[in-house]
Amino acid sequence: MDKRYTIGVDIGGQSSKIGVVTEDAEIVARGVLDMKGFGPDDASLFLDSLCEEISALAASVGLEEVKGIGVGAPNGNYYTGTIEFAPNLPWAKDKAVHLSDGISRRLGLPVTVTNDANAAAIGEMTYGAAKGMQDFIEITLGTGVGSGIVTGGKLLYGHDGFAGELGHVIAVRGGRKCGCGRNGCLEAYASATGVARTAREWLEDDTRETILRGIENITSKDVYDAAVKGDPTAIRIFEYTGRILGECFADFVTFSAPEAIIIFGGLMEAGDLLLNPIREAFEENVLAIWKGKVKIMRSGLNASDAAILGASALAW
Amino acid sequence: MDKRYTIGVDIGGQSSKIGVVTEDAEIVARGVLDMKGFGPDDASLFLDSLCEEISALAASVGLEEVKGIGVGAPNGNYYTGTIEFAPNLPWAKDKAVHLSDGISRRLGLPVTVTNDANAAAIGEMTYGAAKGMQDFIEITLGTGVGSGIVTGGKLLYGHDGFAGELGHVIAVRGGRKCGCGRNGCLEAYASATGVARTAREWLEDDTRETILRGIENITSKDVYDAAVKGDPTAIRIFEYTGRILGECFADFVTFSAPEAIIIFGGLMEAGDLLLNPIREAFEENVLAIWKGKVKIMRSGLNASDAAILGASALAW
Repeated sequence: MDKRYTIGVDIGGQSSKIGVVTEDAEIVARGVLDMKGFGPDDASLFLDSLCEEISALAASVGLEEVKGIGVGAPNGNYYTGTIEFAPNLPWAKDKAVHLSDGISRRLGLPVTVTNDANAAAIGEMTYGAAKGMQDFIEITLGTGVGSGIVTGGKLLYGHDGFAGELGHVIAVRGGRKCGCGRNGCLEAYASATGVARTAREWLEDDTRETILRGIENITSKDVYDAAVKGDPTAIRIFEYTGRILGECFADFVTFSAPEAIIIFGGLMEAGDLLLNPIREAFEENVLAIWKGKVKIMRSGLNASDAAILGASALAW
Repeated sequence: MDKRYTIGVDIGGQSSKIGVVTEDAEIVARGVLDMKGFGPDDASLFLDSLCEEISALAASVGLEEVKGIGVGAPNGNYYTGTIEFAPNLPWAKDKAVHLSDGISRRLGLPVTVTNDANAAAIGEMTYGAAKGMQDFIEITLGTGVGSGIVTGGKLLYGHDGFAGELGHVIAVRGGRKCGCGRNGCLEAYASATGVARTAREWLEDDTRETILRGIENITSKDVYDAAVKGDPTAIRIFEYTGRILGECFADFVTFSAPEAIIIFGGLMEAGDLLLNPIREAFEENVLAIWKGKVKIMRSGLNASDAAILGASALAW
């Protein structure tokens, strides 16, 4: 008899989310694990707690009905099943933790691991805007910039499992310092933190009147709110961000010639404020053979469930 | 009984080369077709002549022993079997020509078409430095800059068959005009013509003494000859070219995480003059997780036979 469920796990710095998911993307049971208690030496403790939570949820549908577990995690590696050097997870910050083995040993189910951006791409292909597509790039604009590249219907993992780090393509050579230690990465401009950084830099350089002036610790949400109210500086910040993304997208297309580039993540709440300048810069910059031929789209995934759904899709 | 031969065809602007090839990469019969006679309306005439030549060569081993024909051609498309908008081929300059159908109909053999850079990648994987590799990028530095990307043991074609146009990644934003009509493409700097262009620009700007001054219509070969003689300007031109390539390679790796980047083509005759600065700039610019881990290598293919061998490998 075919198993009817998979379990998706989305590991995050503040909390990890767990869902029991049907083939039709219905989440029939949900759980959350608070991550705050786990320190540098608590990898085993974390795995114990996670597996207890998964066990309890699986019991609600019958563990024998669960086909497998998919895990999306920052710096998760598909080939090794480990999570490595994940800055926001103290227990995996300076070493590799055997996520798939650890969970599988405790629960007796097959476990597949990938990074969170790849999980979003798989979710998009299984349940979202990329249904039926064989070739697309999923770009996640959140605190950082992540990506998952699908070619020929399969996620591109590369030689070591780390393919698709497009947040660290150099967007502006010699540009802003990035968290990775280099300069000018796309992530330093086009993430939520990058947008806030642009705002702070511009306010220092420019004396024009803007709603943003006076806000302490400006966030991308502040920039969005100001843009919606028609603030010209805030609108220009999104134009600037979108232009950098569109220019980079034009380069991405020369690589894998996708049918679509699909954008997911918190920053996309800016909608057309960001999407219009992306599309404009993309069309201006892309090689002639692709002009007007590549779709630049919003994700079709519900933001709050996407990570769980993406991870669960890994296990089918 | 297993067929013992395939036929490789390398279509070029001046001449097209044909070879009957064994599984061990031995070319047992060779032919050449002069391309100068074929004008804009001569697509059919060209196909007639090409197939006559192939027929004559195949007869030497017995046509029934030939498994199929592989064709490498500028702007050749794997999916459609056509050649489109190839600037150096008058009969395919402003339209698509059905190469695979045309040859297959005339000879009754299966025909596979791809572009010349992809053919080099397939040749590298079948007979050259990438034997046994599942993930690598082949960069061709010739009159232009071409590329073939192999992921999971397969050539990456993308949605439309045009994936891997890495010569048209923007290396210098707002930089030199490229033949494609845009500015700053890698090809405008790192091709043989790009190197010659760098030399001419630098000689105009700089008054230093160099062997290159006084040479009319400088070519990349002149720059190489001068560099071998120790000319500092010529050496710096290769350093500059290598640096741009190394910076771009660092971005390519974030995309497909290859085991190696393999460099093929005429400009690689410069050897370490070019390879050393490429490697240096690559290691300086690549994301920490790949430092020291990606091989930057010379092609293992014999330059004069590579295109025929690559095309023939398509047909196995």
